[in-house]
Amino acid sequence: MSVWLPPVPYGWEDLVSNALCEDIGTGDVSAANLPHGRMAEWYIEAQGSGVVCGLGIVESLMQPTEDNESISFFARDGDEVVPSKIVAKGVLAASDALQYERTALNFLMHMSGVATATHQFVEKVEGTKARIVDTRKTLPGLRLLQKYAVRCGGGANHRMGLYDAVMIKDNHIQAHGSITNAVTAVRSGLGHMIKIEIECETEDQVREALQSRCEVVMLDNMVPAEMAQIVHRYAGQAVFEASGGVNLETVREIAETGVDVISVGSITHSVPSLSFHMELS
Amino acid sequence: MSVWLPPVPYGWEDLVSNALCEDIGTGDVSAANLPHGRMAEWYIEAQGSGVVCGLGIVESLMQPTEDNESISFFARDGDEVVPSKIVAKGVLAASDALQYERTALNFLMHMSGVATATHQFVEKVEGTKARIVDTRKTLPGLRLLQKYAVRCGGGANHRMGLYDAVMIKDNHIQAHGSITNAVTAVRSGLGHMIKIEIECETEDQVREALQSRCEVVMLDNMVPAEMAQIVHRYAGQAVFEASGGVNLETVREIAETGVDVISVGSITHSVPSLSFHMELS
Amino acid sequence: MSVWLPPVPYGWEDLVSNALCEDIGTGDVSAANLPHGRMAEWYIEAQGSGVVCGLGIVESLMQPTEDNESISFFARDGDEVVPSKIVAKGVLAASDALQYERTALNFLMHMSGVATATHQFVEKVEGTKARIVDTRKTLPGLRLLQKYAVRCGGGANHRMGLYDAVMIKDNHIQAHGSITNAVTAVRSGLGHMIKIEIECETEDQVREALQSRCEVVMLDNMVPAEMAQIVHRYAGQAVFEASGGVNLETVREIAETGVDVISVGSITHSVPSLSFHMELS
Amino acid sequence: MSVWLPPVPYGWEDLVSNALCEDIGTGDVSAANLPHGRMAEWYIEAQGSGVVCGLGIVESLMQPTEDNESISFFARDGDEVVPSKIVAKGVLAASDALQYERTALNFLMHMSGVATATHQFVEKVEGTKARIVDTRKTLPGLRLLQKYAVRCGGGANHRMGLYDAVMIKDNHIQAHGSITNAVTAVRSGLGHMIKIEIECETEDQVREALQSRCEVVMLDNMVPAEMAQIVHRYAGQAVFEASGGVNLETVREIAETGVDVISVGSITHSVPSLSFHMELS
Amino acid sequence: MSVWLPPVPYGWEDLVSNALCEDIGTGDVSAANLPHGRMAEWYIEAQGSGVVCGLGIVESLMQPTEDNESISFFARDGDEVVPSKIVAKGVLAASDALQYERTALNFLMHMSGVATATHQFVEKVEGTKARIVDTRKTLPGLRLLQKYAVRCGGGANHRMGLYDAVMIKDNHIQAHGSITNAVTAVRSGLGHMIKIEIECETEDQVREALQSRCEVVMLDNMVPAEMAQIVHRYAGQAVFEASGGVNLETVREIAETGVDVISVGSITHSVPSLSFHMELS
Amino acid sequence: MSVWLPPVPYGWEDLVSNALCEDIGTGDVSAANLPHGRMAEWYIEAQGSGVVCGLGIVESLMQPTEDNESISFFARDGDEVVPSKIVAKGVLAASDALQYERTALNFLMHMSGVATATHQFVEKVEGTKARIVDTRKTLPGLRLLQKYAVRCGGGANHRMGLYDAVMIKDNHIQAHGSITNAVTAVRSGLGHMIKIEIECETEDQVREALQSRCEVVMLDNMVPAEMAQIVHRYAGQAVFEASGGVNLETVREIAETGVDVISVGSITHSVPSLSFHMELS
Repeated sequence: MSVWLPPVPYGWEDLVSNALCEDIGTGDVSAANLPHGRMAEWYIEAQGSGVVCGLGIVESLMQPTEDNESISFFARDGDEVVPSKIVAKGVLAASDALQYERTALNFLMHMSGVATATHQFVEKVEGTKARIVDTRKTLPGLRLLQKYAVRCGGGANHRMGLYDAVMIKDNHIQAHGSITNAVTAVRSGLGHMIKIEIECETEDQVREALQSRCEVVMLDNMVPAEMAQIVHRYAGQAVFEASGGVNLETVREIAETGVDVISVGSITHSVPSLSFHMELS
Repeated sequence: MSVWLPPVPYGWEDLVSNALCEDIGTGDVSAANLPHGRMAEWYIEAQGSGVVCGLGIVESLMQPTEDNESISFFARDGDEVVPSKIVAKGVLAASDALQYERTALNFLMHMSGVATATHQFVEKVEGTKARIVDTRKTLPGLRLLQKYAVRCGGGANHRMGLYDAVMIKDNHIQAHGSITNAVTAVRSGLGHMIKIEIECETEDQVREALQSRCEVVMLDNMVPAEMAQIVHRYAGQAVFEASGGVNLETVREIAETGVDVISVGSITHSVPSLSFHMELS
Repeated sequence: MSVWLPPVPYGWEDLVSNALCEDIGTGDVSAANLPHGRMAEWYIEAQGSGVVCGLGIVESLMQPTEDNESISFFARDGDEVVPSKIVAKGVLAASDALQYERTALNFLMHMSGVATATHQFVEKVEGTKARIVDTRKTLPGLRLLQKYAVRCGGGANHRMGLYDAVMIKDNHIQAHGSITNAVTAVRSGLGHMIKIEIECETEDQVREALQSRCEVVMLDNMVPAEMAQIVHRYAGQAVFEASGGVNLETVREIAETGVDVISVGSITHSVPSLSFHMELS
Repeated sequence: MSVWLPPVPYGWEDLVSNALCEDIGTGDVSAANLPHGRMAEWYIEAQGSGVVCGLGIVESLMQPTEDNESISFFARDGDEVVPSKIVAKGVLAASDALQYERTALNFLMHMSGVATATHQFVEKVEGTKARIVDTRKTLPGLRLLQKYAVRCGGGANHRMGLYDAVMIKDNHIQAHGSITNAVTAVRSGLGHMIKIEIECETEDQVREALQSRCEVVMLDNMVPAEMAQIVHRYAGQAVFEASGGVNLETVREIAETGVDVISVGSITHSVPSLSFHMELS
Repeated sequence: MSVWLPPVPYGWEDLVSNALCEDIGTGDVSAANLPHGRMAEWYIEAQGSGVVCGLGIVESLMQPTEDNESISFFARDGDEVVPSKIVAKGVLAASDALQYERTALNFLMHMSGVATATHQFVEKVEGTKARIVDTRKTLPGLRLLQKYAVRCGGGANHRMGLYDAVMIKDNHIQAHGSITNAVTAVRSGLGHMIKIEIECETEDQVREALQSRCEVVMLDNMVPAEMAQIVHRYAGQAVFEASGGVNLETVREIAETGVDVISVGSITHSVPSLSFHMELS
Repeated sequence: MSVWLPPVPYGWEDLVSNALCEDIGTGDVSAANLPHGRMAEWYIEAQGSGVVCGLGIVESLMQPTEDNESISFFARDGDEVVPSKIVAKGVLAASDALQYERTALNFLMHMSGVATATHQFVEKVEGTKARIVDTRKTLPGLRLLQKYAVRCGGGANHRMGLYDAVMIKDNHIQAHGSITNAVTAVRSGLGHMIKIEIECETEDQVREALQSRCEVVMLDNMVPAEMAQIVHRYAGQAVFEASGGVNLETVREIAETGVDVISVGSITHSVPSLSFHMELS
């Protein structure tokens, strides 16, 4: 059974070829002397429980190029898996299978790790209106894959980088003297398709932010009670995002304050991999 | 006080510029309207305990380019830090500081995470002859930085990839019929500067591996007692590496079997970041 | 007198080196035999009236690298110039000046052309609330420079591409059956920092768009009277953008309908260059 | 009916992928939620009269990759088109068609603009011996495509850059003291396959240029009467090129002077696009 | 008859496309006007005697892309050829054949030159235990292809570069005071999979090197008698490599000293090409 | 004494960084443990007689970056050197000197080899009007450096590739039916700045070639007597180039036929390196 694989983000081909380059370098000195024409049957099996992500990359690495080669998938990105679940299998030249095995697993284990970590937060907030989103605390070079994995885990994406949305932080506010001034300055050169979010640490700041007609207000490191009060008092005037001190123990209480969005750094910066292994025969 | 920074591996400049590209993309829409000429004083402070790593990348990002800019370091890669320890500070154009802050921290937190995780294993085996080494289970694109961080944490590097050393696994053995045949086949085309390691699951395999005169024998997923017996019985005939089931709970017992090398995947594939933040004023 | 040059967008260095590569290729066969050490004094003079843009690229090409070389600027990006206005001058090795002259002028003339065309529209709508913005109808490879030039000419930027804002067109509406369905579908996977604009050809569509709570409504190819009526009737419910049939003759009437934003394709897809020439001696 | 497409110049694949990167960036946020498997029928229609150019790039972008996809062409590069002429049509996954539409049109409209502008000059000089050629006043990064479009419009190419032919200008002459000295200096290191052209502003210069046995003489900014006299007096001694002050009003008179070649900067530096639009259903 | 081609090293695609870029640049001005659809039958014939190498690159350049095109091989890399031996033939569009001919031959002639030069040394040492290996004296950019060609000629590879094995030279020894100190210093940070070779000029140095338990000892510029004595005296304690003054006249005597490995710089730094030509009709 | 270094061709920086990448890869495992701060004095000495070429690349590799570092040159590209001649010396961090030594020498030895081989031909034809030129038989990736070295050796360059001049060979003639037809076909689309050369094997072909007004006639594999007759008979009607069977024994006789140009493949495809070594202390 072959399945549909949702597209991974534009540009991942370079990541794959860089990863191959890291691993294969000037050539695999172990596999070089395998008997010519020897084929390998392979399958990839989950060794933990979580959400699988990265099968598109597995496909691109293990793809058949000859008639006697093949590939099949038994899950798609975003599916939950348990130990012993086989997610993909195929037939490939043995030397190719041995060369691509580690790279395929390195992507799969990390991306599934991100999706799984995200999913754990998503499950915790089930029934509330809060969405779990990522941050810019991503691993260098892997942001697009990680943000894709966050979506596969049931989360959503915060801004992709500094270029697609404005975040006004205390430094901007200091530099301009007030929230109002900072927003005015930023808005003067800003396209009409870009949203503005303002980091607020107090209710006074929230009020000033709302008066500047920003689209999103970040409640930064506030205690849940304060968040709840603000969300209630200013309902509908902006999107409210909770940030800071979010972990699996605290996230439910935060979600119940009524915030729209909860951003979590650890789902991209501190990711335990989800274990998979490849068997060849 | 400015300090000497050991070189990070050849090629990291591309990683930094890719990471900047991910984050800045078509331009920072928030910082664009900072007052021209506004400067920022910044410092980076540890928020957790561990081993710092990645200061060379911080330096390359936050480096002064004008006379009124500066940078100083108060630690070097490999140093242990505790919360509130300031590792670097400087003065930079505010718009630059805001643009590079996140990228600098993303590198620093991940690399320090790897160094810290490694160091925890190294401390556990203190007093034994065992060295902690990494594996090929690295994050795509980050292998060289991770392997550098492993060294900063007191570990050593296993092979860098498929190209600089031979590892004969069960698949190679199957393909050739026996360890002896597999080694013979590989060695026939192999340069005289390349070492061979053989994955062994039983003492019989160890014996055959040693007869083939390989340089390193991997004791794969053996219980400590069996490892100890083999290391004792065949002392001096090869380097012995323990692999499989290694964690902070088990590593000491494994080290006490007398193995030379213990390889640990989690120090590169499942890395909690070490927290740092940057203050600007 | 040296002047401050606003930054051109991130990434233009590659455009400059590609342009040099196009022009210099395997080496300048004409300049090769200039006497060694011969210097050239150069200046760049406007030959038409308009808004200058691209001086940062001129600087990067003509920059001094030796003690006896120099560069000065007499205008900055965004300034209006008239024929005979000298915008920059300097001293450079004659062979370098001859190699970089054409490339510098090619950038300067095109970018100034975009800024000038934009400025002509901006002047026409002076006193109204309408901002002139660009489109995605840009020249391949030059989008960032063109969008920078639009800003220098007094305009603002629409979305940079398909990635930083949503535009729902008739095809999306057809595919989903209705505007409401289309917005619901897009929004389900969309980050909270991304705005949605909907292309509307009738007032009915505008009404449905506003009910879906999109941020921007495009009034596509409507006559001014209809636009004026809609803008008046639904004031404050969204940003209104006029699009289609915009030229220097029609833009004032469109602006007076009260729309917030007018998008113009010709300022990037059909750009007469603003003439500059370089004199060397 | 599928037609033969003449090759566009070597290397355009990078231009296409850069243009896609500019437009798609981190992913199309609008098309992401189209129903999986939805197909689109598309066609591209001229909205103005002129010479079409760039169909090869349209083909590379809109090419079928699945069995239920297709593409057909109804014109080839260099053909004249009128409004409502359909030049290409096909069937593609709707999400792909929406992603590639703008990029395909941006290339097609600009390249057809260059071909059309060239063709207008070519028509004006019909019946004379003069060929219309381009200059180095091209848009950065687009020189090869523009020079290809000039050929499609019936023109020919001047040198591609500084590397494939020598042009001796007043600066070279000044540097060496005389035309004769300048030619001698350049020729001493020059391969025997490279032609030399000399920019002349007076008949005296023309005479000296011809004595140096250069292959091409540029008559720079001369009035037609003077050009006619020179061309007549020195017929057959070199190729004569007219340059400066060439536009659609003046080009016929210049051509009738008997010059071999007329170079025109505006056909590449000030190009109105030829309008095409894509309909999807 | 189509034959199996052994893989050339990872990454050669870039070398091929760079070479095409060098040769074709902005387009083949000679072939541009060949009649459309004209096909060419081509074959490649040896004009000298030696070992062929590089057929994989010939295949990648001359590969059929249309139904009426084809390719066949009559030799594989490593085979010996004599004048008039046809190694490959095919049918291709004439314009493609003319564009790729020179690039294909440039690779084939150089790589076969390396393989042939290597093979001449290999034949000279037949019957001894000595293997012929290459050095780091390779042509810039061509190391991987040259090292592949060395293997095809019957030789083996020394280290690929500075990264995959340690070579301790007199400079390292000076810097550390003694061989023992130098080895200790290097080994402290070295992974357990990396071999160490020490350059020795005297028997005293050999003795110290062996005591440091390095894996390989280089006998640098010693006379054969001295080499023979050392190899005999310390048999089995390390691999012995002869280096310096090796040419076709001296290599046999050196091999008969009993050394394991003889390194030869000229097989990569001073390579006469093996002549092939391509006939088209 | 520091000397002026003529520029090496545009683009060589990439060749140098590729060569470093080949050699250093993931890092120099030997030099890693040199004492921090240890400096090395180095000099480069010729070990053979010939023409030096490539000092600009040596400079770029060994350039000082700290105050206590330095570099001096005692020759410039194109100078003749003899054994023991020191061409450059300097002071550099020992670890850098050891890393760049081999790469610097690999460039220097090959480029000087090309210059030396060229110079040997140039000396042989001294006193005749014949110039020695190169061919397209260059080593992949090194064409620009080799063609630069040919100039340093006193030769001149034939066309750089397929793009900057036309060569009409027997295949083109066959395809079009006659030389006249082939020239007509090529010329119809050709810019006026491109020269045409025609390969002729008989005097009849020469005559037809001259009638077509090509700029250069190649006398392909003719015996000297025939060449002399043709050159004499058609003097002044074109440039005459001798090609085929040119070596150090035959070149003088060929030059004395009166041909203008003699092309030699071996100076780029079969190059013995000129030996240099670097001493460090």
